[in-house]
Amino acid sequence: MKIANHLQLVLLVTVALSVVTPVPAQEPKTFVMAPSQLTLMPVPASVQLQTGRLAITDAFAVATRGFTDDRLRRSITRMTRRLAGRTVITLPLDLSVDESSATLVVQCERAGSSVPSLNEDESYTLEITDKQARLVAPTVVGAMRGLETLLQLVQSDRGGYYLPAISVRDQPRFPWRGLLIDIGRHYQPPEVLKRNLDAMAAVKLNVFHWHLTEDQGFRVESKKFPKLHSLGSDGLYYTQDQVREIIAYAADRGIRVMPEFDIPGHSTSWLVGYPELGSAPGPYKIERGAGIFEPALDPTRNETYKFLDGFLGERAALFPDAYMHIGGDENEGKQWDRNPRIQAFMKEKGIKDNHALQAYFNQQVLKILQKHGKKMIGWDEILHADLPKDAVIQSWRGAASLADAAKKGYNGILSAGYYIDLNFPASQHYLADPLPADSALTADEAKHVLGGEATMWGEWVSPETIDSRIWPRTAAIAERLWSPRTVTDVNDMYRRLAVISYQLEELGLTHERNYPVILRRLANNENIDPLRTLVSVVEPVKEYRRYQMRPQTMLSPLTGLVDAARPDSDEARKFAAMVEAFLSDAPRYRLNRSDLRDSFKRWRDAGTALGPMIDRAPALQEARPLAENLSEAAIAGLEAIEYRSTGNAASSEWRVAQLTKLDEAAKPKAALELVIIPSIRKLVIAAAEPSQPR
Amino acid sequence: MKIANHLQLVLLVTVALSVVTPVPAQEPKTFVMAPSQLTLMPVPASVQLQTGRLAITDAFAVATRGFTDDRLRRSITRMTRRLAGRTVITLPLDLSVDESSATLVVQCERAGSSVPSLNEDESYTLEITDKQARLVAPTVVGAMRGLETLLQLVQSDRGGYYLPAISVRDQPRFPWRGLLIDIGRHYQPPEVLKRNLDAMAAVKLNVFHWHLTEDQGFRVESKKFPKLHSLGSDGLYYTQDQVREIIAYAADRGIRVMPEFDIPGHSTSWLVGYPELGSAPGPYKIERGAGIFEPALDPTRNETYKFLDGFLGERAALFPDAYMHIGGDENEGKQWDRNPRIQAFMKEKGIKDNHALQAYFNQQVLKILQKHGKKMIGWDEILHADLPKDAVIQSWRGAASLADAAKKGYNGILSAGYYIDLNFPASQHYLADPLPADSALTADEAKHVLGGEATMWGEWVSPETIDSRIWPRTAAIAERLWSPRTVTDVNDMYRRLAVISYQLEELGLTHERNYPVILRRLANNENIDPLRTLVSVVEPVKEYRRYQMRPQTMLSPLTGLVDAARPDSDEARKFAAMVEAFLSDAPRYRLNRSDLRDSFKRWRDAGTALGPMIDRAPALQEARPLAENLSEAAIAGLEAIEYRSTGNAASSEWRVAQLTKLDEAAKPKAALELVIIPSIRKLVIAAAEPSQPR
Repeated sequence: MKIANHLQLVLLVTVALSVVTPVPAQEPKTFVMAPSQLTLMPVPASVQLQTGRLAITDAFAVATRGFTDDRLRRSITRMTRRLAGRTVITLPLDLSVDESSATLVVQCERAGSSVPSLNEDESYTLEITDKQARLVAPTVVGAMRGLETLLQLVQSDRGGYYLPAISVRDQPRFPWRGLLIDIGRHYQPPEVLKRNLDAMAAVKLNVFHWHLTEDQGFRVESKKFPKLHSLGSDGLYYTQDQVREIIAYAADRGIRVMPEFDIPGHSTSWLVGYPELGSAPGPYKIERGAGIFEPALDPTRNETYKFLDGFLGERAALFPDAYMHIGGDENEGKQWDRNPRIQAFMKEKGIKDNHALQAYFNQQVLKILQKHGKKMIGWDEILHADLPKDAVIQSWRGAASLADAAKKGYNGILSAGYYIDLNFPASQHYLADPLPADSALTADEAKHVLGGEATMWGEWVSPETIDSRIWPRTAAIAERLWSPRTVTDVNDMYRRLAVISYQLEELGLTHERNYPVILRRLANNENIDPLRTLVSVVEPVKEYRRYQMRPQTMLSPLTGLVDAARPDSDEARKFAAMVEAFLSDAPRYRLNRSDLRDSFKRWRDAGTALGPMIDRAPALQEARPLAENLSEAAIAGLEAIEYRSTGNAASSEWRVAQLTKLDEAAKPKAALELVIIPSIRKLVIAAAEPSQPR
Repeated sequence: MKIANHLQLVLLVTVALSVVTPVPAQEPKTFVMAPSQLTLMPVPASVQLQTGRLAITDAFAVATRGFTDDRLRRSITRMTRRLAGRTVITLPLDLSVDESSATLVVQCERAGSSVPSLNEDESYTLEITDKQARLVAPTVVGAMRGLETLLQLVQSDRGGYYLPAISVRDQPRFPWRGLLIDIGRHYQPPEVLKRNLDAMAAVKLNVFHWHLTEDQGFRVESKKFPKLHSLGSDGLYYTQDQVREIIAYAADRGIRVMPEFDIPGHSTSWLVGYPELGSAPGPYKIERGAGIFEPALDPTRNETYKFLDGFLGERAALFPDAYMHIGGDENEGKQWDRNPRIQAFMKEKGIKDNHALQAYFNQQVLKILQKHGKKMIGWDEILHADLPKDAVIQSWRGAASLADAAKKGYNGILSAGYYIDLNFPASQHYLADPLPADSALTADEAKHVLGGEATMWGEWVSPETIDSRIWPRTAAIAERLWSPRTVTDVNDMYRRLAVISYQLEELGLTHERNYPVILRRLANNENIDPLRTLVSVVEPVKEYRRYQMRPQTMLSPLTGLVDAARPDSDEARKFAAMVEAFLSDAPRYRLNRSDLRDSFKRWRDAGTALGPMIDRAPALQEARPLAENLSEAAIAGLEAIEYRSTGNAASSEWRVAQLTKLDEAAKPKAALELVIIPSIRKLVIAAAEPSQPR
């Protein structure tokens, strides 16, 4: 069976409905447009373009058929408002009574789970002809997924806005497709969460993993233990009403809300109000630093479990999701090692090490969760022989670790590869697969791999910047978790990502709009063009190097150059492609030459213009070496192109001098990397090679 | 006494502390910087620059002295966070214990009113030396006003961020400085209100007038009469918890929250759930149009007043402000005219016309408000012989109407001149004075003029656009209401407004950042430069012409070109000044010539580039004639400049042809006006005048 793995190169897109049980590709019917016009993300399981178009006019009307409820009506209203916003056409918001004349008919069989669930049927079919669009789904959630596809299909030309005639059959590859947002390190107000829930729905993610407690903040009201939030949060926490509001908002979009209360480590903020729960005497203060800290709950005292019973019981009533996440990560047990009573306890019970002690702790917590009707989920560390089989392992270790768990019969989700806080490009996340092609799992074992979650750890994000750390890259992860495994064309992913990214703006996302705001502030509202030129070719350093290079605390402003810069430079990626084409065009060296020259001149001039600007804006001081590097690297690039264009090889002295400069320029400064340097190196090296015949 | 009326032209700014009781100007001490570097807005009552600077470093510490409470601490924390955000310096958030080494000492005498009040003392003094800044205020609210001044004083140069040494003595000219936001026509979520409250505080406004009900929406939960919000709001209303949250948020910033429940007219949405309150039988539907509508409460039935007693009693408990606004505007009484029972009632009671009937209604409402401990405020229409002297008139009619009321002993506030929904430029609002220099009021009468309010009527604003309709223009109104009357330099106002406008971004205001978002959406995410060039020189049509030219409903998307365009084109204003300078430079015509030429070329090319872009983006169709007009007008301008530059007068045929084209270009299209046309006309006319000797 021929499997088409992207939309750009083939006219008919028909991909496996499911990796486990592929269906045969259907024959193409007709094709009236280049599918490169399609910008669906995630790519549906099966797409067939057909002849014709369905115009979007002010007569656009939606009718429902079969099951209809308020949630479906609200989702149709939201879709209609977005369509109206894009087209600037006043569309009726009331449902049509006449199915035959409706532009869109939405046909559901049933509501689906009252609380969004792992077992939700999210499948749908969407058939658009030049007469009508028909969306059919077993559940309201499936219909919502189809409405998002419909919005991604909207096209326009001189004739107006329209939907292309098309046939879509769609369902997710994995049932668990999540985004973790850590609001422990930095609090995010409800409106930030809401707009991100909207964005999640737009790319068909279905689990909001709400990481609610950290060493640096306990951020949800407890009526039973009010000192948790009142002393552990600097006043920055969600009331229970706000929690209910967020849960309802997510449910309205078919998104589960799974809370995480990270124990026994990561719990400093709990201990500020309840030091008696700790494994050392205290007192405790809210942690302001970044890293792994020692405080941990005391696993040996009955009072700890009594507290957790009360606390988790209160949480279980507040959060309707079937799962409750207990964290369980990064507890090194240093407080346990130093506590003689805990050491005595271990000896008495025959508990051989801290891992075993934590397993003991987890067993007690498990009983509490079971009592309150919740299933347990935790990080890799919770995996232990006694863990029940309905628990879920969230793996920061990787797909192999997940496969091990699956072989033992445990469900798991992948987060390794999806750590969006580490500033890796979308392409890297995109290719991480929870169930890789070379997986040795049997079909039954593979079913234990439920999906994955992107993780937005909160050390260095503010309400102003968080969207730019989540989006658009998370849309690529969403595609990995929804679309067939064979959809892996990185260039086509980036093509579609650019469109989806800007469409997310209609939902209020700020990843694009806040960028010039930060630059204006840094530049004292001077013309930001040169600064934008610089920042467009840098990326924050990867992994955990930001903190190492530029230490800050949780109280530091996140308004610096590193906060403005984005993790996945479009400009650098396009530049790298131009350089490749230029070099592969040897011996002519014409392809992209003039564009490259323009880029280098712009970079050189921006670097120069930034000097006096930085003089006036002390917050930009750290940009000075970067600006100088940018100019120098651009000059090296210009010279390299001149050598190649004239056919004279550069001297080895020149080459060495340039490479030395570029080595210097490649060193991160201000926790930023000039990501164009590797491509300029290639040009310099090529310039010094003997010229080829022309 | 010499009164300096702006900061730009004088080195020492010392203006009257109060219009009623001016204090003598103090002698200048020293001046070390051009005050044109100062961008205070509103201009304080008295400012003296002195020698020296106070550096802002990571050792920045704040101590309090005298009275301290949580509200003061929170306001200091907010100030510190903003300062940290601007400077990208990690500043300690805890108060310093050591006053002598603190960078800033805040000294208050008392909390001030527990509920923000009309009688609040908002005065403060701020003394900054190179050793320390000292902010002294009788109340916490006064201290907050001073903290905003301090943030506006932050400067920077190569040496870092600093505060200039300065002495500020400040107090408001008027005690009532408000912003009305109408969320009846279009609902605005709490976060929109919160960021606007932050912006209000930044420019020292102190009344949020919350227009909560309209024909088009009843937007606040009533537990007593739940059909009001459940049937009258499309589900878009504030819960009572949200109302309390907004009130607390405002109080934290020293801002009163005055609710308005507009009766007896503007009440269609009330009648959807409670048709028996209307003066016609109903049923009623939420109004979707714009304009004045007929439905009005029935003023003749006891049940109406019983309902209002229950309703306003519930509101009085929810809203702590001393005043409650009953609207009272634009009831034409057509339902009353047609209701025989109402006519019989009027005859029986000897009520001669609808105005008298409304006065009767108001009298009953007044008793209800008094019973619940509230003072009444309403629009001009409520003024009547029986109105008690503690009522307040809000005048949409003008300062003369206000003066009349004042002579009769009534307090009043001005809104005529401050209708920011009508798209007039800031300069026009700026010069409207509640108590003009030529006022004939005595000093005692003048005390009845309490201030004014900008009014953001909600017909054509969405959460995406509303900030751009309020800001930055409202900052000019805020200055009018705070600063001495003599502060009237429009050019200097605009100079400072540009800085304040961008500073508002740090509070999350979206007036600038959402502009490219709307343009990108309209242009299908193509390069928006040409579109931006066009939109930068158009303004939405003034007054109520938008609805006439481009009818829409309350359900229409507010995502069109007219929604992107802003009411006060900076570019057009600067262009007009350039043209004036160019023409006044006769016979040389060199001043600005090259800049003008560049502008014209840019406009010409943008108009041309827009053609194919519009082809691909149907929502931009309405821009086509504007794009063509822009090109044509730019070509006319280019030619005019060439004539003036060469010294050859253009022919009268050329002149007539150009003026005909410009007349056409001056006609509004898509509810937009090309506001550069009058200046180009001047160039064309000048070009055809006989050349002067060179």
